[in-house]
Amino acid sequence: MRCEVIAIGTELLLGQITDTNSSWMGGELALAGIDSHYQTKVGDNLERMVECIRQGLNRSDAVITCGGLGPTQDDITRAALCAVMNVEMIHHPEIAERIRTMFASRGRSMPNNNLQQADVPEGATVIPQQPGTAPGLICPVDNKVIYAVPGVPHEMRTMMTGTILPDLKRRAGLDTVIKSRVLKTWGHSESRLSELLADRITELDETGNPTLAFQASGIDGIKVRITAKAHDASEASKLIAAEETRVRELLGRYIFGADEQSMESVVLDLLRSRGMSLALAEITSGGIASARLSAIDPSGDVFYGSVIPAAGKVRQAVLGLPATSLGTADAAGQLAEGVRTAFGTSVGLSTTGQHDLGGDKDSNAGLTYLGIALGGQAEVEQVRLPGDRERVRQYSVISLLNALRLRLLT
Amino acid sequence: MRCEVIAIGTELLLGQITDTNSSWMGGELALAGIDSHYQTKVGDNLERMVECIRQGLNRSDAVITCGGLGPTQDDITRAALCAVMNVEMIHHPEIAERIRTMFASRGRSMPNNNLQQADVPEGATVIPQQPGTAPGLICPVDNKVIYAVPGVPHEMRTMMTGTILPDLKRRAGLDTVIKSRVLKTWGHSESRLSELLADRITELDETGNPTLAFQASGIDGIKVRITAKAHDASEASKLIAAEETRVRELLGRYIFGADEQSMESVVLDLLRSRGMSLALAEITSGGIASARLSAIDPSGDVFYGSVIPAAGKVRQAVLGLPATSLGTADAAGQLAEGVRTAFGTSVGLSTTGQHDLGGDKDSNAGLTYLGIALGGQAEVEQVRLPGDRERVRQYSVISLLNALRLRLLT
Repeated sequence: MRCEVIAIGTELLLGQITDTNSSWMGGELALAGIDSHYQTKVGDNLERMVECIRQGLNRSDAVITCGGLGPTQDDITRAALCAVMNVEMIHHPEIAERIRTMFASRGRSMPNNNLQQADVPEGATVIPQQPGTAPGLICPVDNKVIYAVPGVPHEMRTMMTGTILPDLKRRAGLDTVIKSRVLKTWGHSESRLSELLADRITELDETGNPTLAFQASGIDGIKVRITAKAHDASEASKLIAAEETRVRELLGRYIFGADEQSMESVVLDLLRSRGMSLALAEITSGGIASARLSAIDPSGDVFYGSVIPAAGKVRQAVLGLPATSLGTADAAGQLAEGVRTAFGTSVGLSTTGQHDLGGDKDSNAGLTYLGIALGGQAEVEQVRLPGDRERVRQYSVISLLNALRLRLLT
Repeated sequence: MRCEVIAIGTELLLGQITDTNSSWMGGELALAGIDSHYQTKVGDNLERMVECIRQGLNRSDAVITCGGLGPTQDDITRAALCAVMNVEMIHHPEIAERIRTMFASRGRSMPNNNLQQADVPEGATVIPQQPGTAPGLICPVDNKVIYAVPGVPHEMRTMMTGTILPDLKRRAGLDTVIKSRVLKTWGHSESRLSELLADRITELDETGNPTLAFQASGIDGIKVRITAKAHDASEASKLIAAEETRVRELLGRYIFGADEQSMESVVLDLLRSRGMSLALAEITSGGIASARLSAIDPSGDVFYGSVIPAAGKVRQAVLGLPATSLGTADAAGQLAEGVRTAFGTSVGLSTTGQHDLGGDKDSNAGLTYLGIALGGQAEVEQVRLPGDRERVRQYSVISLLNALRLRLLT
């Protein structure tokens, strides 16, 4: 079963919007066991849209178009579908009524433009899920099918998950379930991870199930994805769980989390389970760690807060620290202990380096000190981080949180 | 002159990487006056790559392939080009030598795999810019051309700007220059901006030069792009400058910046020019404003720093403030004034709201208080921000900085 995705909209070709929908759909199709060999972007031009959809139907069993179902003059996907299917457009008053009700529930009256969203090519059916004003469509063409979904990401996703993926699997006669789990690592390069897992990957190559794949994610580390096929979900979960155990034996504490977990969620959970609290003094990272921690601990249960002493002269005023030894290992230790005391937390963390003092870039641009105060003498870890200033700032955050994680696990 | 982009890599189809390269190239082609009607993604499969490149050459004058020029077995773009051009591969020892030197300069020896990057289809020339190990290629096919660039974004961009865009313009005989300028607005909806500019857009529709276009950018506001064509750069700049004056007359202070400027850079520049300094107490925004400000004021010349009192109980310890009236307008005023005093700055800012206290979501989820202390009684602006918690946090930052901008301009 092959299905290809056609993203519609001149704004995509002009680079005004990046087409993230196709990437998401590609990932979901792969997980559903559906092959997808091409993705195309085409503008709001009837002739070219028709040509792309026809080509898709020729070389694949199904096509998903994304975009062009809105109420404006540019939204001509419905017309393109009529041309490909060689049918007339039928107006559906019950769809118009549903859209009118949707507007009314927001206290607004429906503009006349939205009426065209109630036009459906003859022979097409409407996708039951409709989170917005645009109905999605299922258009049979001989023994193949075109699905049309709106370009609004959450509307598209609801229709994909609710209707299109199950329908494709049914058409493909797929009774297999594909599941995957992502293990997240920090501290090894991709080539080092490959070495550590090389023997296991060779073993798995013989059966092809489960599989292991790497994915570099920059400032979030390197992911190892385990994918398993089985006849039911519980069997797939068992295969994944067994493989996860093996991979964890090989990679140990380089794995910091899985799936929806992030470095910050893992660290907050570790602290919470130990009844501990956290404060930060961020110089290198300038608030990035705080923004991430506060996103998932909104009322400050574990993350009590931070000080960002961006100017050297405020360090004394706020933390009671001497303004000397800026950007040094000593400073990192003082900052971590200073913020721990000021906020009355179990743990104080800090980031600093010579690069925070301004001036010219030099060969020490990435040299960063990470302070960890847990009572007693603060510990300072020295790391050399790659990339430009913004990457150094980002890497300092995950390096710092990982250092605390490893410290808590010892 | 038509040019289409083909992004190569199975990881793009599987959604493991989002193809942002094609979006950037699409934008640059449009600015260069080159039409681009299709963009395609195809996996690392020789037959399908050849088919896509041939199709591109049939319907366009030029094709740019992006990706598949690396040193691994998956990197087969060179082989696909040989097939399309119907020529043999030629090994170029001088390219191998250049790659070997590149490795040596990093203190490493060149792996043998990289030797294949010195293979070039007969008749192709190498793009002079080569920031990484992968040479870019120019492959003439009859009176058309294929450009092949690596998928590493900065390598691709260097080759596009240095060679491909000028070469395409020369081939197209384009002696026109297209320039554009983006005016950034905050505070009006797209439909309100359309109304304000409606008459002007109608006038411009008659000549078609310059043009105005809107682009919604979510948490960064709405952009108005002025694009002008002319025979030389100075004439295009004049057209843009005249149009910018007209648009500024119509939109006034809703325009906060242009092109590379951001809300934070504009606010820091305003403060710097007045000899003023800034500190923040971020509760709702939890460090997001600090991360943005510190990114562009690394040594704290204007942005002295922040406190993020995530837990209510630390507010007294750090800012000397009572822990009462959490999440209220009074609290916003106290926080702004408190952080101004603690850091000894000219300006103190704050974000807070009931949503910071945890607990259930309610209808006041987006109600946020923005405190501005400039000496004297702190001012508090109350705003109702849309979306989920993360959007409210992001919107609070741009709303707060914009409020300060307007206050400084009065």
